[in-house]
Amino acid sequence: MKLTGKLFIGASEVAATEGTMKALNPATNQVIEPEFALGGLAEVDRAALLADDAFDSYSHTSLTERAQFLERIADNLDAVRKELAARASLETGLAEAPLEAEAAKAATQFRQFADVVRKGRFLQLSIDPALPERQPRPRMDHRLQKMAIGPVTIFGASNFPISYSVAGGDTASALASGATVILKAHNAHPGASEIQARAIRNAVRESGLHEGVFSMLRGEGNAIGEALVDHPLVKAVTFTGSEVGGMALYRRAQRRPDPIPVFTEMTSVNPTFILPAAQAARGAAIGDGFAERMLVNVGQACLKPAILISIEGPGFDALRDAMAERVAGAPARTMLTPGIHSAYERGVTRLEGEGACRVAEGGTSQAAFDGQSVLLEVDGQAFLSNAALAEEVFGPAALLVKARNEEELLAIARSLRGQLSATMHLEPGDTALARRLLPLLERRTGRVVVNAFSHPQEVSFASIHGGPFPATSDSRFTSVGMTSIERFLRPISYQGFPDNLLPEALRDANPLEVPRLVDGQ
Amino acid sequence: MKLTGKLFIGASEVAATEGTMKALNPATNQVIEPEFALGGLAEVDRAALLADDAFDSYSHTSLTERAQFLERIADNLDAVRKELAARASLETGLAEAPLEAEAAKAATQFRQFADVVRKGRFLQLSIDPALPERQPRPRMDHRLQKMAIGPVTIFGASNFPISYSVAGGDTASALASGATVILKAHNAHPGASEIQARAIRNAVRESGLHEGVFSMLRGEGNAIGEALVDHPLVKAVTFTGSEVGGMALYRRAQRRPDPIPVFTEMTSVNPTFILPAAQAARGAAIGDGFAERMLVNVGQACLKPAILISIEGPGFDALRDAMAERVAGAPARTMLTPGIHSAYERGVTRLEGEGACRVAEGGTSQAAFDGQSVLLEVDGQAFLSNAALAEEVFGPAALLVKARNEEELLAIARSLRGQLSATMHLEPGDTALARRLLPLLERRTGRVVVNAFSHPQEVSFASIHGGPFPATSDSRFTSVGMTSIERFLRPISYQGFPDNLLPEALRDANPLEVPRLVDGQ
Repeated sequence: MKLTGKLFIGASEVAATEGTMKALNPATNQVIEPEFALGGLAEVDRAALLADDAFDSYSHTSLTERAQFLERIADNLDAVRKELAARASLETGLAEAPLEAEAAKAATQFRQFADVVRKGRFLQLSIDPALPERQPRPRMDHRLQKMAIGPVTIFGASNFPISYSVAGGDTASALASGATVILKAHNAHPGASEIQARAIRNAVRESGLHEGVFSMLRGEGNAIGEALVDHPLVKAVTFTGSEVGGMALYRRAQRRPDPIPVFTEMTSVNPTFILPAAQAARGAAIGDGFAERMLVNVGQACLKPAILISIEGPGFDALRDAMAERVAGAPARTMLTPGIHSAYERGVTRLEGEGACRVAEGGTSQAAFDGQSVLLEVDGQAFLSNAALAEEVFGPAALLVKARNEEELLAIARSLRGQLSATMHLEPGDTALARRLLPLLERRTGRVVVNAFSHPQEVSFASIHGGPFPATSDSRFTSVGMTSIERFLRPISYQGFPDNLLPEALRDANPLEVPRLVDGQ
Repeated sequence: MKLTGKLFIGASEVAATEGTMKALNPATNQVIEPEFALGGLAEVDRAALLADDAFDSYSHTSLTERAQFLERIADNLDAVRKELAARASLETGLAEAPLEAEAAKAATQFRQFADVVRKGRFLQLSIDPALPERQPRPRMDHRLQKMAIGPVTIFGASNFPISYSVAGGDTASALASGATVILKAHNAHPGASEIQARAIRNAVRESGLHEGVFSMLRGEGNAIGEALVDHPLVKAVTFTGSEVGGMALYRRAQRRPDPIPVFTEMTSVNPTFILPAAQAARGAAIGDGFAERMLVNVGQACLKPAILISIEGPGFDALRDAMAERVAGAPARTMLTPGIHSAYERGVTRLEGEGACRVAEGGTSQAAFDGQSVLLEVDGQAFLSNAALAEEVFGPAALLVKARNEEELLAIARSLRGQLSATMHLEPGDTALARRLLPLLERRTGRVVVNAFSHPQEVSFASIHGGPFPATSDSRFTSVGMTSIERFLRPISYQGFPDNLLPEALRDANPLEVPRLVDGQ
């Protein structure tokens, strides 16, 4: 596929109005062809008007039609998988094999949402039949279903250039909900973004849908993103990235005359607690597993286990040695962007400045944006007295916190801000401590893991990628998994309707055969 | 019951730290005994610490224990129903009989939520079993349930001094979710608030729960409410009232270092569309029914039908005459507070200044805060060219909008902001127009009614009291009905857990016998 570098506004490929840019290969520090168009406020307005214009028809598509559209996207993504992984690798420095797996996962996600759409449970159909004899007054017939909230702005993220970018879970869940999508592409991988956008845009056309169902914009700096958050026709926003970036968008949207929901997924150190019996039984294996996961994607993952909390005692040295050994054996690898690389180096320096000691380091950098793996250590008291040590450093670094005893481990849990996940490694002998630790973790995280690691994330019905602030901006939702669709749905109640005016899913004959609650049962 | 006038902080009755106040009887413009304590920041902090301290135990109560607690509240409310209605009537000028019905409805609501809790569906239990053979990597067991978000601040509203106040739906749904509650009492009905708070507080004690499950505070001006929104231990806020008040709290909460969910229910004119065949067939009956509903609670209701949109033609005169006749026959009645009364008079004057003509008026005021009923009229073009005419006037006034034709009626629908409800009166001959109107209403409202009126609101599973901004601050939720509990719930996922560490509801044996999704089915 030849990259055109254009903006995709509905069916139109639109040339630059605000200059152009080229991608950087961070492995070589060389720019890559071709030029990519940058747009401005006029393009935002045009895409928003189209998305709004498409909303009525797209949000009322039949479940079958919408599911087929999502499956077409999946097929189109599969057809470009190798090409997409190759371009994404050039633009991110990540290896092609995991990027191919990521592309396959992205396609799978669209198929999973097609299944969610077909089954229709997300409509949360609910019927309270009329009770004409009820005293003191009769009840009228009420029927509820969920509908999409309106056009949605989705910000592509930098770190997973497919599964958290143009064809990622946000796009899949928003399109599944019946929302129309304006995608703000991340400038770190414009070519990979175009390949994905084309797959979606072609599926829109092949499905005979309104062209405004999907657009992709790109701009210089923050202006285009801000305009997308401000636009009156945009009704929700999703973002995955830094706390600073996420909060800027969140607060901006809340200052609108009509505030809109913004789901930002921002920061998490995914604290991992090693309970004493588990440490004694298998300290080395846990340490090795932890270090393996912290290095995935060069540590550039929201689910990177960044802080391990252990207690001095049997197995501690084995745990630490295993972590150190794997970190020491890791070569330096290319980070996503020059900015992320320099922020990583500053972050490690900061942790050391706050009193964390370097236990091990990986191979040294061979190129400008290589990130060196680092394992740091601090004792529990120092960690508790310095909140800066609990802040995320994005990249291949982790912090081992050595608590003196169980009480100190619990105090550390109590000191933590909101997290995407928390993990306990435990054996039956740890149950009493786990019962004390668990309520602390429940209040602070969206997912609690036992005897595994925070990474990878399952994409399913019962998995959650969310959590209390600052992990996300709203702990009531998730950005990954089948229930992530709920971010874009709102209920609407039909009271006293004649059957022929009801949405199909709510008619007496239940033609869609979707399960419906009756009086809440 | 003797009123003590104290603040209720957990089990303690706390004396004034920031002066006292007395209630006003708006019918007589006389103050009523006794004195009521006002508190400040110290009381906010004390109540928030208690609510946080109570959270772990209360949010983990068994479903049975929590349901019994809600039923005790209902019983305690029933026991004081007459006394509560009498005091509320004195403080609001509303008649005792409807206030008794309101108290009965409030008790019913606690029993309805007890049933919701017992059935456990709100936990949204979901299990994705382990798939050890899955390729390329096995799936671990994931189990999801909802848990409460944390301590919640609830603002009592002025207009329904029971069902939207201390013992209203916000409190019932928050306590049902497992959240602890700090209630900010409305100063317009401190005695009625105390009677309700005592019923809840006694139920906390009788149920053997942590005293911090419920507190009630009162303060001068906005300071105490602002402190409750700012407090770091408060994790969600609900408010029903004006757009100005609601947005001030909303924006304040969004400026916190950690923004929290705020559900505000603010303003709605509940537009009522009369389609031509219905108007021809029964214009007079519709006009009379509309005017009857607009006068309920002296027009001081979020669901008051405030704007009727009709088309010139057969039945129009009968419709208008019936409205005018009922309005003309309505005596002036006491409004809730001096402030609401003067805002109402200003509002009517404002609508007239914007070009609305007075069609009919009710009996003139006999006392200082009596509100005179008023019916105004404007033509469709004037309405479309002046957005100020679409703004709510809280009180017994309504606006009849006469459209020239169907296109103008549709244009009016398109011009409206978000609403709690919209209504269509129709006959089979109106179906084609209804099909054009309905998508416009779906995008703008939480509930669409056919051949009835926006008031009353059903409290059930499929009814919604919500809608796009500015009806509420988040169209994804409702503040009335059984699904209002969702405002206070967040998901948590348990991955790879041994059975003995799982919450009871998620254990293999399913001891609570609550329905659970397996792989989303």
